[in-house]
Amino acid sequence: MDNQSIIHSVIFKLKHEQGSIEEVRFIEDGRSILSSIPVVQNFRVYQQVSPKNDFDFGFSMEFANENDYEAYNVHPLHEKFVNERWIVEVDSFLEIDYRNKD
Amino acid sequence: MDNQSIIHSVIFKLKHEQGSIEEVRFIEDGRSILSSIPVVQNFRVYQQVSPKNDFDFGFSMEFANENDYEAYNVHPLHEKFVNERWIVEVDSFLEIDYRNKD
Repeated sequence: MDNQSIIHSVIFKLKHEQGSIEEVRFIEDGRSILSSIPVVQNFRVYQQVSPKNDFDFGFSMEFANENDYEAYNVHPLHEKFVNERWIVEVDSFLEIDYRNKD
Repeated sequence: MDNQSIIHSVIFKLKHEQGSIEEVRFIEDGRSILSSIPVVQNFRVYQQVSPKNDFDFGFSMEFANENDYEAYNVHPLHEKFVNERWIVEVDSFLEIDYRNKD
């Protein structure tokens, strides 16, 4: 990761029951759809296990620079996923963007 | 990262002015003290740049397993840093713990 690049992550809680088919479907669709967007690098799915916050999952990805991040934001696959799935199935979330400070 | 390992991160906002000597000192002391604890792997410092939350920095580290995480929590260097610096100099924070779901 160089100084231009950005680690974008979102931690979230779904409306679905834990361990439900709907939960698995959301996670796997998110993984396959979002990671297929060409500017997305190192897409990861995490379980959020700290009892100190209310979120259950994390999606994390890297962009080479701000232009790639913006291309992701306006990419039709991303917009469709947000409008048709995220808004419908996600209960709460927090977005975090990191730049390297090392 | 295997299935045992945990990525522990904390995003935070300092009481210090942005760009102040006190800010630099906190970040660099945090980096050197916490990364020196033997169980801590891949310690990273990030700037948090998303306008969608109120935090300015992130510390991130990996533990090989729960035992190493617990060893960190109770390590004297960690406890001293929390009691003498974190509680005094940090305005707000959120802890996140990730396990791999890939």
